[in-house]
Amino acid sequence: MQSINPNYENKSKTVRDVAYYVEGLHAGNRFILSECITLVESRSPSKRKIAKEILEKIKTPTSTIRIGITGTPGVGKSTFIEAFGMYLIQQGHRPSVLAIDPSSQSNMGSILGDKTRMQFLSTNENAYVRPTATGNILGGTAAYTKEAIQLCEAAGFDIIIVETVGVGQSETEVDFITDINLLLLQPGAGDDIQGIKRGIMENADIFVINKADGPQLQLAKQTKISYQTAIQLFHHDTDGWSCPVILASSTEKMGFDIIWKAIEDYKQLILKSGNFYTNRTEQEVRWFSMRSSALLQQLVFNQSDVKQFFEHFADAIRHEKISGSSALTEMELIFKKIIQN
Amino acid sequence: MQSINPNYENKSKTVRDVAYYVEGLHAGNRFILSECITLVESRSPSKRKIAKEILEKIKTPTSTIRIGITGTPGVGKSTFIEAFGMYLIQQGHRPSVLAIDPSSQSNMGSILGDKTRMQFLSTNENAYVRPTATGNILGGTAAYTKEAIQLCEAAGFDIIIVETVGVGQSETEVDFITDINLLLLQPGAGDDIQGIKRGIMENADIFVINKADGPQLQLAKQTKISYQTAIQLFHHDTDGWSCPVILASSTEKMGFDIIWKAIEDYKQLILKSGNFYTNRTEQEVRWFSMRSSALLQQLVFNQSDVKQFFEHFADAIRHEKISGSSALTEMELIFKKIIQN
Repeated sequence: MQSINPNYENKSKTVRDVAYYVEGLHAGNRFILSECITLVESRSPSKRKIAKEILEKIKTPTSTIRIGITGTPGVGKSTFIEAFGMYLIQQGHRPSVLAIDPSSQSNMGSILGDKTRMQFLSTNENAYVRPTATGNILGGTAAYTKEAIQLCEAAGFDIIIVETVGVGQSETEVDFITDINLLLLQPGAGDDIQGIKRGIMENADIFVINKADGPQLQLAKQTKISYQTAIQLFHHDTDGWSCPVILASSTEKMGFDIIWKAIEDYKQLILKSGNFYTNRTEQEVRWFSMRSSALLQQLVFNQSDVKQFFEHFADAIRHEKISGSSALTEMELIFKKIIQN
Repeated sequence: MQSINPNYENKSKTVRDVAYYVEGLHAGNRFILSECITLVESRSPSKRKIAKEILEKIKTPTSTIRIGITGTPGVGKSTFIEAFGMYLIQQGHRPSVLAIDPSSQSNMGSILGDKTRMQFLSTNENAYVRPTATGNILGGTAAYTKEAIQLCEAAGFDIIIVETVGVGQSETEVDFITDINLLLLQPGAGDDIQGIKRGIMENADIFVINKADGPQLQLAKQTKISYQTAIQLFHHDTDGWSCPVILASSTEKMGFDIIWKAIEDYKQLILKSGNFYTNRTEQEVRWFSMRSSALLQQLVFNQSDVKQFFEHFADAIRHEKISGSSALTEMELIFKKIIQN
């Protein structure tokens, strides 16, 4: 086993032993953290095996807070997270940013841009910025991101920000890995401007009207009132929490105190009710259940004949050559052949 | 095979041959329709097998419309559906109502009440009212309800209303079996009054403010304006449809023309764009995929040892005796033992 230098970067792509990774994480080494997340995201069975062992061995503190931040492209998410992240560092925190972009495939194309844009945050030694590869991950993005969160926490990051683009399914999934969710909006209302799918609202605990500065400040104030009215029509079921709508400006560093206070208030509320821990253990059970199901699907559907049959039938249904029911009967025969009683 | 009398009721619980059911359905026999839905919902493998064969053999017309209707208890759903159903019959239609209540277990407790309350509709020979047992159905309520829809259509019902209670997951599921979704609201706004989870809004294509009569009419008009404003803040992504908010009264039979016209307008819009059929075939593929996965889970997790291991680990996670990762590793070993390569 190698001796651990907190700033040592393993440039070679060799896979080391588990203790190397675990010690590196506990020492807060960001390069080793990166390597571990890569292992978690890997499709190679041998690398996944090591990832699993790492996850089993690390100590993850429960005093952290996991914040989901969602908003459509153009709302200023990266700029906001960079400024808010720097604010958190000034308050003595160590924030970590995990970005989920379902549109980016495993080459992580569109999100690496974010990392470059968060130039202060990503180069600050008290922060860690990382895109998550989400292209077609079996078993859901949430399960893998949950693992990345645990790795970040083991490496001493106390605030985990999970960023999603607010246009797909991942926002509802993210609800199963975060403690609290922020929705970023921009001044101006209406679907053409915001482009938000209605369901995204459900997961938000705090609404932030970003870019509330300069000539847009007045419009931002109006938008705040519109959303406050709209929010009253919906039901938030956690401990009687009433969702605040907060004005913020990344350029003028405005609103961060209020946002952070709202996050802390919410955390106190769910800590007091016990929902914080219940939520986390239930998330862990849900992760176990999701990953067990995914694993079973994987073990069976990755058998090339099963896969081919399934795709053949799905296609036949699309072209109305077979009914769904008949296709299912065929699949049942295939399953029964490979499962032992 | 028995000769078919359209009003013949098979009082014995004997399972007949497939041709008996198929002919009965095509003859529009409501009692045989009930028997078929019972077979679909059955957990008995032999009954499920017959249900499957029936589904494979029936002819389901595609000229039908499948309407989801959601609303919280107290909003007047049953009364609305009864009155709207009678209106549809007067227009020459044959409506069928399938009610999904996730809170009712397989004894169908809470929904049989609805059937009694819809006394005119449930006894009218041009209508069919049926609760769906949803308690713990593996593979989701939607898959089973989709089968019940197909049976109703085969029996000549041209408008299928799928009723959900608007407080759970089933509303998002229902989106995968319906062509259009109505959300029923009552006069007065705010979460305490409506009790609607925010995400339910996402699936609604038409908003109906029910009970817009007598002293509540004025309040209903205000509620309509509030929702019109709120809806503008969200994004509806189907063919540029803009969700109408319609006032209705079940007691005064008011608003039904406008609601039915909105449903027809929406249907024309999606027929024209092709989304009507694309949506249905994709729903069929999705059904096949869901049921294949559920079937696989069922074949494996129903093995008593697998089930026991899974529950043991889930419990251990809840009591923090084992990490999710370690539990997953154990499950993998169990799966590998029973799956042949």
